[in-house]
Amino acid sequence: MPDFIFRKASIEDLPHIVAMLADDALGTSREIASDPIAEEYAVAFEMIDADPNQFLAVLTEVDGRMVGTLQITFLHHLTHRGMKRAQIEGVRVASGTQGQGIGTELFRHAIAEARARGCSVVQLTTDRQRPEAHAFYEKLGFKPTHTGFKLRMNS
Amino acid sequence: MPDFIFRKASIEDLPHIVAMLADDALGTSREIASDPIAEEYAVAFEMIDADPNQFLAVLTEVDGRMVGTLQITFLHHLTHRGMKRAQIEGVRVASGTQGQGIGTELFRHAIAEARARGCSVVQLTTDRQRPEAHAFYEKLGFKPTHTGFKLRMNS
Repeated sequence: MPDFIFRKASIEDLPHIVAMLADDALGTSREIASDPIAEEYAVAFEMIDADPNQFLAVLTEVDGRMVGTLQITFLHHLTHRGMKRAQIEGVRVASGTQGQGIGTELFRHAIAEARARGCSVVQLTTDRQRPEAHAFYEKLGFKPTHTGFKLRMNS
Repeated sequence: MPDFIFRKASIEDLPHIVAMLADDALGTSREIASDPIAEEYAVAFEMIDADPNQFLAVLTEVDGRMVGTLQITFLHHLTHRGMKRAQIEGVRVASGTQGQGIGTELFRHAIAEARARGCSVVQLTTDRQRPEAHAFYEKLGFKPTHTGFKLRMNS
């Protein structure tokens, strides 16, 4: 496997990240991959970037080409005796690079980051319309113990 | 239904909240309800209390008696065009008060708070060992669209 670099995303990475979020079976109808990028992404990026409990990550090849992204949120809860958790969202592997272990590499780094921050659990939810993602997470050792509920609000 | 007060928890509420977290089918083996409370809870409370994206809430009767608690985390993600979300954790209704609509009242306030903070989605995960919770969330309009995965890490 080639060497990869896992690092915090910078504002210059944002168009590439948004393009990756949109280049996805479910993301294609949810995201807008325009040039320049939609204002909503820039606003969200600033909030994420300024928050010490957020870590928006990219995985690149040594030449700088981005091959993956995910967002980690470090959560403090009272439950489980105040246990710290890392929650993962927005996982993408660049199209054309699937099957090269990039997803596993992304998670290897994310889990190491969570451990370094004192988290006892890494958690995520995945849409039931993504059976291949379910198999991937189980292979990494995740257990599907919970049901994820969403309430969409009319604005 | 009697009047209730929904408010941010203060440090004085913490022993009551911890007692409620422990007084639960799953919580009883996960939490420690000691007097004084275990240090981990005080540490977690300080982190939560200082974080503008966290809202640890209690529901009390007008005489101050605590009847419910939940924790809201406001999340900023890039996905869904930078959509803001509210995530709920640590929901408890005081034993002996179940069936009085207190859970519904807790969520009515939590959803209003999420809306006031510009969230488009309220989300939570619930353990598959809580079938009665599943029915409750579906009644409130939540959709069980996701699977919640957890990876427990050896420390």
